[in-house]
Amino acid sequence: MTDQPSGLARLGEPGAEIPVLVQDGVAYDLRSLTSDVDGAFLAGGGIDRARAAAAAGELPVLEDADALRVGAPIATPGKIVCIGLNYSDHAAESGLAIPAEPVVFMKDPTTIVGPFDPVLVPRASTKTDWEVELGVVVGTEMRYLDSPADALAHVAGYVLSHDVSEREFQLERGGQWDKGKSCETFNPLGTRLVPADAIADPQALGMRLSVNGALRQDGSSADMIFPVAHVLWYLSQFMVLRPGDLVNTGTPAGVGLGMATPEYLRDGDVVELSIDGLGSARQDVGQA
Amino acid sequence: MTDQPSGLARLGEPGAEIPVLVQDGVAYDLRSLTSDVDGAFLAGGGIDRARAAAAAGELPVLEDADALRVGAPIATPGKIVCIGLNYSDHAAESGLAIPAEPVVFMKDPTTIVGPFDPVLVPRASTKTDWEVELGVVVGTEMRYLDSPADALAHVAGYVLSHDVSEREFQLERGGQWDKGKSCETFNPLGTRLVPADAIADPQALGMRLSVNGALRQDGSSADMIFPVAHVLWYLSQFMVLRPGDLVNTGTPAGVGLGMATPEYLRDGDVVELSIDGLGSARQDVGQA
Repeated sequence: MTDQPSGLARLGEPGAEIPVLVQDGVAYDLRSLTSDVDGAFLAGGGIDRARAAAAAGELPVLEDADALRVGAPIATPGKIVCIGLNYSDHAAESGLAIPAEPVVFMKDPTTIVGPFDPVLVPRASTKTDWEVELGVVVGTEMRYLDSPADALAHVAGYVLSHDVSEREFQLERGGQWDKGKSCETFNPLGTRLVPADAIADPQALGMRLSVNGALRQDGSSADMIFPVAHVLWYLSQFMVLRPGDLVNTGTPAGVGLGMATPEYLRDGDVVELSIDGLGSARQDVGQA
Repeated sequence: MTDQPSGLARLGEPGAEIPVLVQDGVAYDLRSLTSDVDGAFLAGGGIDRARAAAAAGELPVLEDADALRVGAPIATPGKIVCIGLNYSDHAAESGLAIPAEPVVFMKDPTTIVGPFDPVLVPRASTKTDWEVELGVVVGTEMRYLDSPADALAHVAGYVLSHDVSEREFQLERGGQWDKGKSCETFNPLGTRLVPADAIADPQALGMRLSVNGALRQDGSSADMIFPVAHVLWYLSQFMVLRPGDLVNTGTPAGVGLGMATPEYLRDGDVVELSIDGLGSARQDVGQA
């Protein structure tokens, strides 16, 4: 795990993940501080307490951490809110207009899986597509924020997120996108929740995704139409963002739908993705 | 509470509700069986265990139950899935085509409030609208069901649900409906979770909603385009429905948007709603 950044992680079998703070490749067991990396932990200054405890030598090292499955770095959130068409090149390749304000949709929170868990193509699917995204994890409640300038102080951290999408379900089956976004395993997350203060500028992160070794997405968060701070301020006018919630901020160009001859994921494919400072992930594609 | 049916309820202040089984107006304290009316309780046969314990005289009566706030009858679900335009008369009044297959969208699960809690008009809202709906609470997991005939056996119970909607946010602000469905307090729920076996036919339930005493919706679940069993089977092809999840199955004609001169909710309004066999609710409208 030494190619992964420092940050919070959850290691172990699904439903029994152990919360850890990984620093320089060493996993410190957080169970003396919290049972999970959840909203209560994040809202209560948990990240700072974890780092202070590690610095004070108060946290035991989790033995054999490298042998454990890597789970998603946060507990199942209360909601996943997603921004659509937030990169102009992706809007263009999708054949859709650049939005005048953020397009908002949701994903079933139980679609979250670990960064190396398989992604399952739904049974009736012929158009399962990939989307590398910058994920934002809410630290403290946001409700009717006055200004985008107020937003980033409420962010707990950032995470590499894969917003897997079924294009036929999303676009050709009745008008609302959620149907193509909420299939099981459709949101691999992690490896790390990287604390917000470790990311100098969330709008300057290169992001890449490859399928079977061929680079398909090669973008930067610099090209977001609506930057993270704007997105969070905007969302807070319509809903309450609560600690632990996940916001997926959109994908750059290069998805399967946008190819001259569209290509989609099939059983046996391998997806690899990364974002600068947030680490990398790899998912084998299977069949539901 | 004697005008309300028998069923499960949660009584007490928000976040500290006590799970009870109400029978013939008597509230039996369920805390010896479960900490909450959540997915684990429902999936584990909790309703049957609660009724058996009550019949055996093993449950204490909760004293002064009538003095307690009535909360939503289920714990915050993992997701709320909603069906749009599921009554042909409502599709017509909305100026939208009758869908060829269910229209699916989602609502932030933390929009759920108690059946007598206030509904808050969002700050920028001018088109906050009402929608009485039959809510279905999932009892056991549904994933790729073979047939609609398999669906109802997975239902824990039914609940009176108010799918409050902001029409400008939903329809005029960027294309996806979730934005107008997830404002705080936008899903009053209850009073009761009525066990599935107490509802002989979920497709024969009259449902009504009035605003300031004027009857606005007066429909029946008999008029659903896609009945409950079809909806659940259909959803299970796209996502996993898990114990405790809530499915709002659509609203009949009579919403504010559909009036010859549209009317919307304002601070000071009073909404009353009911569904046959599921009881009644009443919400004062306030301003966020």
